[in-house]
Amino acid sequence: MEYTEERLAEIISSVEEPDRKFMDAAEKRQAQLAKPPGSLGRLEDLSVLLCGIRRVSRPRVDNKFLLVFCADNGVTEEGVASAPRSVTLAQTVNLVRRKTGGSVLAKNIGCRLMVCDVGVDAEIHEPGVIGRKIARGTNNILHGPAMTRDMAVRAVLTGADLASDAAAEGADVIGIGEMGIGNTTTSSAVLSVLTSAAVKDVTGKGGGITEEAYLNKISVIEKAIDLNSPDRSDVVDVLSKVGGFDIAAMAGAFIGAAAARVPSIIDGFIAVVAALCAARLCPAAADYMIPSHASYEIGYRVAMDELGKRPIFDLGMRLGEGSGCPIAMSILDAACAVMNDMATFGEAGIDDEYLDPIRKIDAFTV
Amino acid sequence: MEYTEERLAEIISSVEEPDRKFMDAAEKRQAQLAKPPGSLGRLEDLSVLLCGIRRVSRPRVDNKFLLVFCADNGVTEEGVASAPRSVTLAQTVNLVRRKTGGSVLAKNIGCRLMVCDVGVDAEIHEPGVIGRKIARGTNNILHGPAMTRDMAVRAVLTGADLASDAAAEGADVIGIGEMGIGNTTTSSAVLSVLTSAAVKDVTGKGGGITEEAYLNKISVIEKAIDLNSPDRSDVVDVLSKVGGFDIAAMAGAFIGAAAARVPSIIDGFIAVVAALCAARLCPAAADYMIPSHASYEIGYRVAMDELGKRPIFDLGMRLGEGSGCPIAMSILDAACAVMNDMATFGEAGIDDEYLDPIRKIDAFTV
Repeated sequence: MEYTEERLAEIISSVEEPDRKFMDAAEKRQAQLAKPPGSLGRLEDLSVLLCGIRRVSRPRVDNKFLLVFCADNGVTEEGVASAPRSVTLAQTVNLVRRKTGGSVLAKNIGCRLMVCDVGVDAEIHEPGVIGRKIARGTNNILHGPAMTRDMAVRAVLTGADLASDAAAEGADVIGIGEMGIGNTTTSSAVLSVLTSAAVKDVTGKGGGITEEAYLNKISVIEKAIDLNSPDRSDVVDVLSKVGGFDIAAMAGAFIGAAAARVPSIIDGFIAVVAALCAARLCPAAADYMIPSHASYEIGYRVAMDELGKRPIFDLGMRLGEGSGCPIAMSILDAACAVMNDMATFGEAGIDDEYLDPIRKIDAFTV
Repeated sequence: MEYTEERLAEIISSVEEPDRKFMDAAEKRQAQLAKPPGSLGRLEDLSVLLCGIRRVSRPRVDNKFLLVFCADNGVTEEGVASAPRSVTLAQTVNLVRRKTGGSVLAKNIGCRLMVCDVGVDAEIHEPGVIGRKIARGTNNILHGPAMTRDMAVRAVLTGADLASDAAAEGADVIGIGEMGIGNTTTSSAVLSVLTSAAVKDVTGKGGGITEEAYLNKISVIEKAIDLNSPDRSDVVDVLSKVGGFDIAAMAGAFIGAAAARVPSIIDGFIAVVAALCAARLCPAAADYMIPSHASYEIGYRVAMDELGKRPIFDLGMRLGEGSGCPIAMSILDAACAVMNDMATFGEAGIDDEYLDPIRKIDAFTV
């Protein structure tokens, strides 16, 4: 596979927005289902969106995939994270061994897991880990760019290719998550640059750090942005200067899913920053990205607002690893059931004599 | 079965709070699981609660039941509802035919449905509807009490018995919902009396009514409370004066589930008012009741606050029929998976040579 900006541009230009025709038909059906209009709230909206994304009248999300991109970040040298760098490796392995939070939640709903090493700082021989390592971690953004532009392009395309692989294997929905110690730092850096928000307004405490470490984290991000001067109008430049292999690959996966007309699920903070990168690179892909939970991280809402989206649940989760995606997929299953299995007002009519009064059921819509 | 206040008192006195020993052990395990402490948010809290409710160390909610209590309300004569009274009958039948929103959502997750007629204004011959009719609808509360005290006791016990039946059939979790045109009116009346909140502060537009009909609804409730003078310290009196067969049976079901040490799920507005009635009758039962979605109805939050609970998701739903319960059950499944299947920090240790650094994984908790 070639990793060129030309190929990335081709994928981006192949993405078409969800099909309005199918969405219109789906909205019409929702209005005919035997319930007060709008009474199933966002389940209705989600079912309509799925019809537009998949170009179908009866959507399904039976084949569920979760892609988790794993990478290390050079900036962990600066004490920005609560856990040591080695945890990236450990949890990458534990993900495929189905021992981590994200992986047990995926297994619980029969969601297939693809764990992809795009930059873990170790040789990984674990069966099941998809090896697409670009380098053993990024460079420390406090001393220079995280990676070269070529590496950033390669990471984005790697993510797009993985999503394309999942689609080829029949994915009806693709959750997108990550594992990478230090990646809330790089995510806040990317988000601050893309939105021009002050670093302190998009930076939280990640896995859990002291107040002192938190102030250091903000300072590190500010200095890194200052040093690298990323061009906010050029997403690939931003990713290469202050991002990470994981964020770049996730951004590519969102685009790849959209190119394959498969809905994607945004996990938490890192994922929503990647989704914003994807939407900036490929605006037509934005409507394919479905939020899951409201992350506890302060920057999450900033990124969601920028995307014009709202999370669909809030359980106070902040683990990463794609852990919010499986629950969102359960909710999409519910949305599909509403669209596919409920009776319309017409079908809800019942012939038995004792049920005659229910012929008035259309008054329901009053 | 005897329907006496003595039997109700016996059931109430048999309820014991969730077992703190099992919850302490569960909290200890959550702290040992390989994740930043608290990073799975409410999934952790829910898993701990389930351990206390079920008296187990590894909780499961495999056998799911949804109880839907159906009844008509005399107050529909006053034009308080958006749909005609006949819709109660139609949707009761459509529930067992698996055509309504609540029933397709239950089916979607393999949740068994028990539809119970406690007061529909029709003879129902539909197979599958559990016949426990107390009367063909309540009386119009604008002209007198909804029902006699005996009927209220019978309704509460009927609900408790149904929950007990579900538990005997192996229920690991019981969702509690309703179908009854006019029952947001009776729910607002009961809630206003129990909390002393102004009627207008706990009354919404139900299935969807005009502003004029809404003002009429408030006035009807105020007059009904004034006329019937329910004793707010006596829940059975309140239910009999301004409640309904559905609310009373649901209140009983919450108590019956707690008596059987089975968690119950609170659907929407009517369900949370019933849950509040149950908690007032039987304070030890309160911790067995798990919220689902935030209802759109204005009184929902008042009742939730009074119970000291918070909904676990918000999808803008307001259908009733127990429709929020199945999604909550999916989330409980996820909570169980976290508790049962994740590795602890100890178990996450990996022997392979290349993974040596991860012995530092306990630094995760820093």
